[in-house]
Amino acid sequence: MSVLVIGSMAYDSVETAEAKAERALGGSATYFSVASSLFARTNIVAVVGEDFDPGDLQRLKARDIGLEGVQQLDGRTFRWGGRYSRYFETRETLFTELNVFDRFDPEVPESDRTPDVLFLANIHPSLQLKVLDQVERPRIVALDTMNFWIAGERADLDKVLRRVDLLMINDEEAFQLSGIGNLRKAAERILDMGPRALVVKRGEHGAWLVDHDGVTLVPAVPLGHVVDPTGAGDSFAGGFSGYLASASSLDRRTLTSAIVAGTLCASFCVQGFSVDRLERVSRDDLRERHTMLQASVSDVACDGL
Amino acid sequence: MSVLVIGSMAYDSVETAEAKAERALGGSATYFSVASSLFARTNIVAVVGEDFDPGDLQRLKARDIGLEGVQQLDGRTFRWGGRYSRYFETRETLFTELNVFDRFDPEVPESDRTPDVLFLANIHPSLQLKVLDQVERPRIVALDTMNFWIAGERADLDKVLRRVDLLMINDEEAFQLSGIGNLRKAAERILDMGPRALVVKRGEHGAWLVDHDGVTLVPAVPLGHVVDPTGAGDSFAGGFSGYLASASSLDRRTLTSAIVAGTLCASFCVQGFSVDRLERVSRDDLRERHTMLQASVSDVACDGL
Repeated sequence: MSVLVIGSMAYDSVETAEAKAERALGGSATYFSVASSLFARTNIVAVVGEDFDPGDLQRLKARDIGLEGVQQLDGRTFRWGGRYSRYFETRETLFTELNVFDRFDPEVPESDRTPDVLFLANIHPSLQLKVLDQVERPRIVALDTMNFWIAGERADLDKVLRRVDLLMINDEEAFQLSGIGNLRKAAERILDMGPRALVVKRGEHGAWLVDHDGVTLVPAVPLGHVVDPTGAGDSFAGGFSGYLASASSLDRRTLTSAIVAGTLCASFCVQGFSVDRLERVSRDDLRERHTMLQASVSDVACDGL
Repeated sequence: MSVLVIGSMAYDSVETAEAKAERALGGSATYFSVASSLFARTNIVAVVGEDFDPGDLQRLKARDIGLEGVQQLDGRTFRWGGRYSRYFETRETLFTELNVFDRFDPEVPESDRTPDVLFLANIHPSLQLKVLDQVERPRIVALDTMNFWIAGERADLDKVLRRVDLLMINDEEAFQLSGIGNLRKAAERILDMGPRALVVKRGEHGAWLVDHDGVTLVPAVPLGHVVDPTGAGDSFAGGFSGYLASASSLDRRTLTSAIVAGTLCASFCVQGFSVDRLERVSRDDLRERHTMLQASVSDVACDGL
C-alpha cells in the first residue's frame, strides 16, 4: 500500500489579516505527502532548486516520505506569494515565480512505479500524462487541475481525464469544465468525460462525492480558529489518497470515509502556516477531531414530518 | 399553535441569467407565511398599497393565513428589483421603493396577540419593538435582521436582541454584529447579546444551529435545478417557525428538525419565481425531499481511523 504524488515543492510568502509567513515550506506535493503519510507510505515526484533547505527535505524524510523522485536543479525553487482577505473569503496572488519548475521533466524512480494510488496534483496536463505513462496502472488514479489548464490546455487535459478514476475539483472549475452553472448537473456532465467519481472541494463548507449513484455531502469541521488556508486542498487530497491506499475496498462507504480523512487533515493544515501544524498531527489528534466532527453533524431527522 | 410574522409584502422584479419575472408577489412576510402555513396557522402583520391585487390576498387566504393584521394604505405597494449573477453567487439590487412601507405603523389585531411563535422579519428594529410590546410573551421569539440595521440602528437592534430567543443571521451579518471574522467565535459572541440560540443561514451550504452546547451543521438539499433564490431565507424561516409552533418541545433535536423543515421549504422556494412552486408543495413533497436529503448526507464515518 503506497501512494505516489506528482506536484510542486515551493517556498511561499503568505499574508493574512493577522500574520505573515516568509519562505514557508509549501507546494502541492509537500502538503499532500505530509497528510498522506499519516495513512500510507508516500513517494514524491517533484523538483526543487539549489536553494532548497536540506532541513526541509529532512522534515519529510522523518515521515518516511520517499524523495528519490525529487530532482534538484540549478536555480531557485518555485515561489508563490499570496494575500488573504480579512475573513479568508478571497485570496490574491501577489507573485508566481516558476523558477526550476519551468524545466521540470518528471521521472518516476523504478522503485516507485507500482503505487496503489497515484495522485496527479495541479500541474501542466502534459506532465501528468508523462507520469501516467511511467507507472503500472494503479488501483486508483486521482487528478487535480485548475482554471488555467481548463482554459488553456484543454486537449491534454481531456486526455488525462479519460485515464483517471477520480477528479478533485472546486465549484468554479466544475462550472468552467462543464459549461454548466449548477454544481450537481455540472458534476454529472463531467462524469461523462472519463472519471467515475468526482470529489468537489467546497472549502469550509465541506465536500461532495458525486458518481453515477448520486451525491453524498460531507461537511467540514466547524473550526473556531484558522491561521492560513494555504494547502488545505492538497492536505485534503493527501488524507483522502493515503486513506484509500490503506483501505481494502473502493466502495462508496470507503470513498466517503476517505473524504472524512481528507477533511480532518485539511482542518489541521489551516491551523498553522506551512505544514507546521499538520506535521505534528497524531493518530489521536485525528480521532479526537473526528469525534468533534461527528458531534457537529446533524442526522437531518425531521420528526413527525 | 400559531405563528405571527411581521414583515414585508412586496412586488418584485427579478432577473436571472435564464429568465425574468415582473411584479412577482414577494416580501418576507409572504414567503414566510406560505412556508409556515404548511405546519401551523399563521397570521401576518404587514402593509400593502392600494395597487395590491386582491387575487394575491386570496392566494394567502386559501392557505388559511390570517390577514387581519395586513393594513391597506393609499399609495403603492413596496417594490424591489434585483438581478442575479450567472451562477447565483451574487445579487445586485436594482431598485428599492419603500412606498407605503415608509408609513408602516404595525398594529397586531386583538385575536393575534397570543402566538406560540413570533417571527420578526427583517424590518426596522423600532417596528420590531412595537410588535413585541403588543403581544403576550410567546413561547419563542425569533428575529431576522440585516447589515443596514446592524450598521445604522444598533441601539434599537440591541434592545430587540435582548428580548428574543433566537436570531437568524448569515455569515456576513454575524461578522458585522460581533466584530469577529470566524463564524463559530462570532456566533458565541452574539449569544452574549441576548438570544439563546443562533441559526446561521448559509444558503446552498445549509445552516448552523449554535447555542451554548455547541454547533450542529444541517446541510442543504443538493438541487439539480434552481430558478430564483429570492425568498429562500424567508421560506426557511417560515418552515422553521411553523415546525416549532407545531412541536411540543424545544430541545436541541426539535430545533434541528425545525431547521430541516426550513431547509426543505427553501429548497422548493428556489425552484420557482415568487411563491409559485412553494405554494404547490404538499406534505408528500416534503417527505419525498426529506428522503432525498437524508440519502445525500454522509454519517461522516471513517472506518479504521
